[in-house]
Amino acid sequence: MSERISGIAASSGIAIAKTFVLKNPDFVIERKNVKNTQVEIDRFQQAIDQSKAELEVIKQKAEAELGKDKADIFAAHLLVLSDPELLGAVNQKIEGETICAEAAMDDVTSMFVSMFENMDNDYMKERAADIRDVAKRVMSHLLGIQFESPAAISEEVIIVAEDLTPSDTAQLNRKFVKGFATDIGGRTSHSAIMSRSMEIPAVVGTKHITEKAEKDVMVIIDGLSGDVIIDPTEAEITEYQQKQADHQAQKAEWEKLVAESTVTKDGRHVELAANIGNPNDVEGVLNNGGEGVGLYRTEFLYMGRDKLPTEDEQYDAYKTVLEKMGEKPVVIRTLDIGGDKELPYLDLPKEMNPFLGFRAIRLCLEQQDIFRTQLRALLRASVHGNLKIMFPMIATVDELRQAKAILQEEMDKLISEGVEVSGVIEVGMMVEIPSTAVMADRFAKEVDFFSIGTNDLIQYTLAADRMNEHVSYLYQPYNPAILRLVNMVIEAAHKEGKWAGMCGEMAGDETAIPLLLALGLDEFSMSATSILPARSQLLKLSQEELAGHKEKFLNLDTVDDVINYVKNFMS
Amino acid sequence: MSERISGIAASSGIAIAKTFVLKNPDFVIERKNVKNTQVEIDRFQQAIDQSKAELEVIKQKAEAELGKDKADIFAAHLLVLSDPELLGAVNQKIEGETICAEAAMDDVTSMFVSMFENMDNDYMKERAADIRDVAKRVMSHLLGIQFESPAAISEEVIIVAEDLTPSDTAQLNRKFVKGFATDIGGRTSHSAIMSRSMEIPAVVGTKHITEKAEKDVMVIIDGLSGDVIIDPTEAEITEYQQKQADHQAQKAEWEKLVAESTVTKDGRHVELAANIGNPNDVEGVLNNGGEGVGLYRTEFLYMGRDKLPTEDEQYDAYKTVLEKMGEKPVVIRTLDIGGDKELPYLDLPKEMNPFLGFRAIRLCLEQQDIFRTQLRALLRASVHGNLKIMFPMIATVDELRQAKAILQEEMDKLISEGVEVSGVIEVGMMVEIPSTAVMADRFAKEVDFFSIGTNDLIQYTLAADRMNEHVSYLYQPYNPAILRLVNMVIEAAHKEGKWAGMCGEMAGDETAIPLLLALGLDEFSMSATSILPARSQLLKLSQEELAGHKEKFLNLDTVDDVINYVKNFMS
Repeated sequence: MSERISGIAASSGIAIAKTFVLKNPDFVIERKNVKNTQVEIDRFQQAIDQSKAELEVIKQKAEAELGKDKADIFAAHLLVLSDPELLGAVNQKIEGETICAEAAMDDVTSMFVSMFENMDNDYMKERAADIRDVAKRVMSHLLGIQFESPAAISEEVIIVAEDLTPSDTAQLNRKFVKGFATDIGGRTSHSAIMSRSMEIPAVVGTKHITEKAEKDVMVIIDGLSGDVIIDPTEAEITEYQQKQADHQAQKAEWEKLVAESTVTKDGRHVELAANIGNPNDVEGVLNNGGEGVGLYRTEFLYMGRDKLPTEDEQYDAYKTVLEKMGEKPVVIRTLDIGGDKELPYLDLPKEMNPFLGFRAIRLCLEQQDIFRTQLRALLRASVHGNLKIMFPMIATVDELRQAKAILQEEMDKLISEGVEVSGVIEVGMMVEIPSTAVMADRFAKEVDFFSIGTNDLIQYTLAADRMNEHVSYLYQPYNPAILRLVNMVIEAAHKEGKWAGMCGEMAGDETAIPLLLALGLDEFSMSATSILPARSQLLKLSQEELAGHKEKFLNLDTVDDVINYVKNFMS
Repeated sequence: MSERISGIAASSGIAIAKTFVLKNPDFVIERKNVKNTQVEIDRFQQAIDQSKAELEVIKQKAEAELGKDKADIFAAHLLVLSDPELLGAVNQKIEGETICAEAAMDDVTSMFVSMFENMDNDYMKERAADIRDVAKRVMSHLLGIQFESPAAISEEVIIVAEDLTPSDTAQLNRKFVKGFATDIGGRTSHSAIMSRSMEIPAVVGTKHITEKAEKDVMVIIDGLSGDVIIDPTEAEITEYQQKQADHQAQKAEWEKLVAESTVTKDGRHVELAANIGNPNDVEGVLNNGGEGVGLYRTEFLYMGRDKLPTEDEQYDAYKTVLEKMGEKPVVIRTLDIGGDKELPYLDLPKEMNPFLGFRAIRLCLEQQDIFRTQLRALLRASVHGNLKIMFPMIATVDELRQAKAILQEEMDKLISEGVEVSGVIEVGMMVEIPSTAVMADRFAKEVDFFSIGTNDLIQYTLAADRMNEHVSYLYQPYNPAILRLVNMVIEAAHKEGKWAGMCGEMAGDETAIPLLLALGLDEFSMSATSILPARSQLLKLSQEELAGHKEKFLNLDTVDDVINYVKNFMS
């Protein structure tokens, strides 16, 4: 009898293979008193050296196979191994308490981990995960225990694990790893993001997969529905092989649309663009037929480092993206940091409600040196492509005017310094705060474009933190209130001859697309992998026909009403 | 030469008197080792008993002079003094470390205080303040040091202090205390709230008043502007005596309006109601000419206790308010707890963004036993007056329908049990989440009235936590986006023949009143003490005339534009 459990669909596709169970090694750490502490200090140093050597290899492999930024995590791990505070504390403990290296190491790292974990801040929590990951490696060398390394896999498997650490995923060989299933995590956890970027089917957050699935047992992963079938019957295998074939066939169909333009049945062109976080992501945009970059989240340039990126470092990154995209438009959003996205070197205040806090343009208008450096880098890079600059988290007309004035000042300075700057840079703003949607007619007079950031707009409009499971039922893209706000924004833009895009999750959603087309959205920006399915859908829709439904769906009461309406009348 | 410093105007009026400097006693705590620990345990017990006796007296005095709920703080202090965990820890420390009672007490209370303070939750922080306050009292008995007690004041003074603790304010004699000025605190800190409820002029948050003002020096407190003048010149004293007289004269003018109805120059009646938190507040509403209670915040019934209030306890409170108000309308809001307002006995989850979290109706719809108990108490009380029931934090039509269905179920149950229930209870909702303002036309079909909660509506619409000083500049009642949302709500209500009120701070604001009247607001609910000034202002305004400005001010860009417009054209 097969068993079926369900989790969160993290990366689409079907995988059928035997399990490879990745378990955390069971280290037994004895607390031994020692006489000769120097021996322990030497043993500890040796384990550190071995771990460093190992990490260097993994880092190079990751750089080659996954790109530099994915490999950056190992640079962070290497930093931990060189951290004098941590190493010093272990050595002191060995000497002070005359105990063995294992016990000293365990005490110190547990202390650091619990300290970082209690910091209630995602960045620090990641540091805790780093230390835990590094400590495991060092401990395995101290104890002489080899833990089962995913790098050793040499046949087709589905990885089953409580969770996957960054070092785990970096060692996965795409040739053999067909999918993975984890106990914990959500759509935005590290393992979920990695699975999508590696295009490996994955189901996360199953809660019980490691209990239920043993080693070498057959499983099916359905990365479309979130189902995992353990020990499937022959009939189930046949059924899922068919699903797999269908999915492959559909992907092949979609791939034919890579070079096509997105024109609806009634001849209206809309732009399908991608959201990116790094210059390396551009390849995926082009491979998936993206007609532009609708959102380049520049904050990743500022993260995972110990000081601000220089103007030149930023210039290089922006230039790379602009050059790779050629004539295609690239919307670069200025820094959206603060709130839950912290930069330790900025020493931002701890806030009670970070989503309603000091972030993005609010921070940039106060710490203008950071903002001006970024604007200079953007302006200098503008000559290398089709740049559009976008300000995040604008709430008031005053803020927009202030941001535009600073941009103009930096442009004037550069020109007076003899630096070449493009003369055709469009300047726009995110619409992600309800006030800007409500005032879109006024804002439309002062920008070249809007990009609706639905992730935030929905959470503010419904006063529901999308990361909070107790209220996530209120995070409703199809709430008629959201559709009305989107409608206000698009109408306001068109009235002033400007364009309106959307760069939240909603833009790539199958149910949302007919609604957004009906409302007249000009640009849809989404994950690169959603572009081709969206194009395939849009080619079959008629803008004019759908627009006829506008008055009706804007006057519905509930989310269910909207979803039913789309199903029955708009697709 | 006089010196002028400024702080936050916490309670209006002018006071001129000599200072009484209230300082925290400088306890020097020696860490003495003792042989006979029993002596220390006995000394500790004696200090506890003395403190308890003292607190009982203060509590009774506070009950008589300030009302039961203001005195509740001392019940909490008495609980601290009976807490076996705290007392046990001190005794254990005395015995285990053979140290004196002072040192043991100091160690234990410091530990508790820092634990509660680090909890990042207002309720727990208050507990820390309680413990600090109680510890000070016990320590004074242990050390035999009498600290300067505000109860001893017997001539007219202005109190100067770093901050005032609840025990301090409860001991103040209104006959002698003419005003106070503190270093710390804001408009909603304990001392500010107390000053308003005692109607004593106060300036808080001056930062430096305790440094600048010595004992027995003359000072002037301007509770209208937030200024404090230390050692004023004769001319300044004369000037402020005049201001004081003017303020008194104005108050006397206002008091003449107590029994008047609020009718504008062009004959439109609007209702001026009050926001209350406790049955005791009703007296203040009637004394200030309130035409109703626009918001009874029932959460205070649930706070400062260790379990939920019973149906009968609630019934009594609601009945008291309804009876005291007679035929005047009383809008009672169902429980708005969660978020930053925690109830320790409910064990709610810790949230990253409590303002966007699991609170109010969200919690009530999940923990229905709590909700149903409250609804039954309300329905039973309905026969004693003019009750209107209001749901807080409604975000979607689904939630409203669910809440109404539960109310109907409880009503049916009561009727079938033979309990009498009023047949004319209006049911309404707060509009404090942007989605409900945007969808007001749909909601208006399903409620009897709206009450706009501007405090929350502004913070969600502008995505700015009003408690966060870094973004409080964005907390803008006059932002045209807010005015447009208010307009949508009022228009939607009137179209369906329903009424729209407002129960946020904005409703009592001098600049906002002409705007709200122009938009057609039917009911203004505010602090009781704002009612008469608001009535005086409204009597001079013409609704029809102001409405003519609507299209203009709704199409302004910024807050400054709006404020200037009101100043130049609408007042």
